[in-house]
Amino acid sequence: MTDLHLPLDRSAGRLAAQIAAGFRAAVRSGRLTAGTRLPSSRDLARDLDVSRGVVVTAYEQLTAEGFLIARRGDGTRIAPLARPDGDTAPPGEPAPRPGAPDRLDGDPAPPASHDLTPGRPDLAAFPRERWIAAARAALRTLPHDALGYPDPGGVPALRAELAGYLGRVRAAHADPGRVVIMNGVAHGLSALLALLRAQGGNPALAVEDPTSARQLPMMESAGLRLARVPVDDEGLDVAALARSGARAVLVTPAHQYPTGVVLSAARRAALIAWARDVDGLILEDDYDAEFRYDRDPVGCLQGVDPDRVVLLGSVSKSLAPALRLGWAVAPPALAARLRDHRSRTDLGAPVVEQHALTEFLRTGGYDRHLRTMRRRYRARRDALTAALAAHLPAARVHGVSAGIHLYVELPPGCDEDAVVAGAARMGVAVTGARSLWSAGRAADAPPALVLGYAGLSETRLVKAAELLGQAVTHGADG
Amino acid sequence: MTDLHLPLDRSAGRLAAQIAAGFRAAVRSGRLTAGTRLPSSRDLARDLDVSRGVVVTAYEQLTAEGFLIARRGDGTRIAPLARPDGDTAPPGEPAPRPGAPDRLDGDPAPPASHDLTPGRPDLAAFPRERWIAAARAALRTLPHDALGYPDPGGVPALRAELAGYLGRVRAAHADPGRVVIMNGVAHGLSALLALLRAQGGNPALAVEDPTSARQLPMMESAGLRLARVPVDDEGLDVAALARSGARAVLVTPAHQYPTGVVLSAARRAALIAWARDVDGLILEDDYDAEFRYDRDPVGCLQGVDPDRVVLLGSVSKSLAPALRLGWAVAPPALAARLRDHRSRTDLGAPVVEQHALTEFLRTGGYDRHLRTMRRRYRARRDALTAALAAHLPAARVHGVSAGIHLYVELPPGCDEDAVVAGAARMGVAVTGARSLWSAGRAADAPPALVLGYAGLSETRLVKAAELLGQAVTHGADG
Repeated sequence: MTDLHLPLDRSAGRLAAQIAAGFRAAVRSGRLTAGTRLPSSRDLARDLDVSRGVVVTAYEQLTAEGFLIARRGDGTRIAPLARPDGDTAPPGEPAPRPGAPDRLDGDPAPPASHDLTPGRPDLAAFPRERWIAAARAALRTLPHDALGYPDPGGVPALRAELAGYLGRVRAAHADPGRVVIMNGVAHGLSALLALLRAQGGNPALAVEDPTSARQLPMMESAGLRLARVPVDDEGLDVAALARSGARAVLVTPAHQYPTGVVLSAARRAALIAWARDVDGLILEDDYDAEFRYDRDPVGCLQGVDPDRVVLLGSVSKSLAPALRLGWAVAPPALAARLRDHRSRTDLGAPVVEQHALTEFLRTGGYDRHLRTMRRRYRARRDALTAALAAHLPAARVHGVSAGIHLYVELPPGCDEDAVVAGAARMGVAVTGARSLWSAGRAADAPPALVLGYAGLSETRLVKAAELLGQAVTHGADG
Repeated sequence: MTDLHLPLDRSAGRLAAQIAAGFRAAVRSGRLTAGTRLPSSRDLARDLDVSRGVVVTAYEQLTAEGFLIARRGDGTRIAPLARPDGDTAPPGEPAPRPGAPDRLDGDPAPPASHDLTPGRPDLAAFPRERWIAAARAALRTLPHDALGYPDPGGVPALRAELAGYLGRVRAAHADPGRVVIMNGVAHGLSALLALLRAQGGNPALAVEDPTSARQLPMMESAGLRLARVPVDDEGLDVAALARSGARAVLVTPAHQYPTGVVLSAARRAALIAWARDVDGLILEDDYDAEFRYDRDPVGCLQGVDPDRVVLLGSVSKSLAPALRLGWAVAPPALAARLRDHRSRTDLGAPVVEQHALTEFLRTGGYDRHLRTMRRRYRARRDALTAALAAHLPAARVHGVSAGIHLYVELPPGCDEDAVVAGAARMGVAVTGARSLWSAGRAADAPPALVLGYAGLSETRLVKAAELLGQAVTHGADG
């Protein structure tokens, strides 16, 4: 049995457990194969210089687990079921690659010295100490019962704080009974799509064209028909929506993603009228409405008709996507179904961070953070816009002064892919807009880039614009 | 317009926003109804003693939001779409009740002085300060990028720590590529059921009989046929499983819930053989295996055949359910599908608490906490068992010395409902076992209680057993 290399650390105690672990390892590595007869407990105890009871305990443990088979008259053998490692990886999809997050927008792989990929706020600005302080303050005063299974619809204190906040800042019609805490906008959206699908009748979901590439794969896999509806300078084309036959629509009224236009007043009215006509549902993705720089943001659609609109929001742009903390504000019956959905899937959101956000909202820390970020992002947007005007004068920046990205239409005839590739070679990571359009409209869409500027200093944005100007010049040449 | 009660706080600034908020409130409350013509901006500015520009800005904001309609020659009117509050709550399901968590096990409502409802660990023992310290230590060293969108399968550092921990403590065959972080066992289970259903072919899931009442509604709504398979003193009846025709089974091998028996060695071998015969999948709910008091816990089934078994675990019993943090250890191809499922539903688990658990595991804080709790729970279990022997000698405690609940078979002829009700009247909250059985077997199941003892001191457990003895005596009388 010295072949087994059962290294025992006598100072660590639990010798039986050590022996059992050694056997398991030997079976898995293939050193011990099925049917192999083991030495008697007496012999092995002598070999290892341990008491016989220790070996008996180890054998019993391994027998109970199914690694060994003990038969009277036949001794103890390795079970035919225990297989070595080499056998355990069936062909098929590769395992998740640790350290390689599945960026749904399809980031280029090499690290860029200027990363203008959209979708993330300035992560360096996340108020780490204040966030932990809020979590600690909350945890200090929570009753013990609050650490049990949570309300699947969200901690009542957070739903109340959010209702007040969204009413005040987004003109939402929110009360705690309408608010359901979700792990971000994507989670709220996927839950709503699951509920729509469960109603049967092969429902269709209308989606803006262009739209976020991050959400498309999720929507495509949700089992609903997708109807793409064009966006123009007034936002979603509601007449086209009506022709689509869909009775549910996902929109970004405050700041269309990616074009940056605001849904016009006429279209807002038409959209609500549409929803009433078809008994439809509007899913309002309010993803970055905290950041409007030239005036107050347009209030949310949900505040106009809370029976027809579900407001979806999160802290992913205001604090950090890593928190996975968001909300849906829905008509009471639908809010109850969303809450029920959570009780049948993940039993609700983690509680400590819900209380941390409650504390952050209640003490005004959230508002202060947003004011700081609004100033910072505005300066960055202005710097990038000015630098683009200088280095890429033929490009046109679309949309209102808001958010954390720019939609930049390239000069006519420019090759979007060549610009993206050329910029990447200069260390500037940018995203082309074509993949955000439907197949039918992508061919006619002018070449364009979506530039996320939240994470770069003004100096670096100016440099990035300069490099981008060179990439476009080369692209036009090539 | 004094009717409008537009209270302006001039020291607070943002007068246009204040005016807009006043109008919205007036529309919602019904004080301003659709079609009402508003005063000109000039008149309202004079009434309110503000500049005309302020009123114009407010009107523009409300028009953009759809509350107002401005037509040339017709002035500005309240839009027909804006409706008052009273109209906004359609009939249907009630809104979520704040503060009334949806306890799926159906707890009795009134607060009990001795709460022996099963399913929760000792929440008073949650190491609040050490948990926050672990979160703070993790947040201090995280790179900024770690605050972006996470790996939907879980933070690599946590997957690596868990793989080591589960290999060491549960004899699991775990590597980081097989570990997917989920928001608890329920979340892992619901995701796996969704994947099974998506494969089509009207799949069946076999479930132990009796089983956890918490999981039943979720499984019933997952769109799979449920096949209940009897449990006896050796655990799941594998021959009955084979007859059920199901090719997936949910089991609790280390400590069957609720009966507390351990799946025997022969049954473990038979179960694995079954899975290979039918090309089936075993879902191993390892819900409380950290707590075995008389010997080392039986290693997990997953370690015996990692191709056929998915190990599901969480910190809900070891730390607190409120953390909503758990894992699935699955064959690589299935792990990839689970990760993909998260990328299409909620984009992954919150990151800070994943790093806090990583830190807790890495520094040995998790092991120390478990050692402390093991001693405490063992003493509580022993105290309750002894007190039941004294006060309820005709009852029989099932199962091994493990976990945080007891399955107590009441004396024959005892009326389970009457005992539960009688105990409740004395302030002792207990759960009857009948609802955990299938309809077909519930009639023959002996009367029994499931007692959760984790949260009560030994003194209070002795008192609870005494009261329970009285409730049984009265129940037998009645």
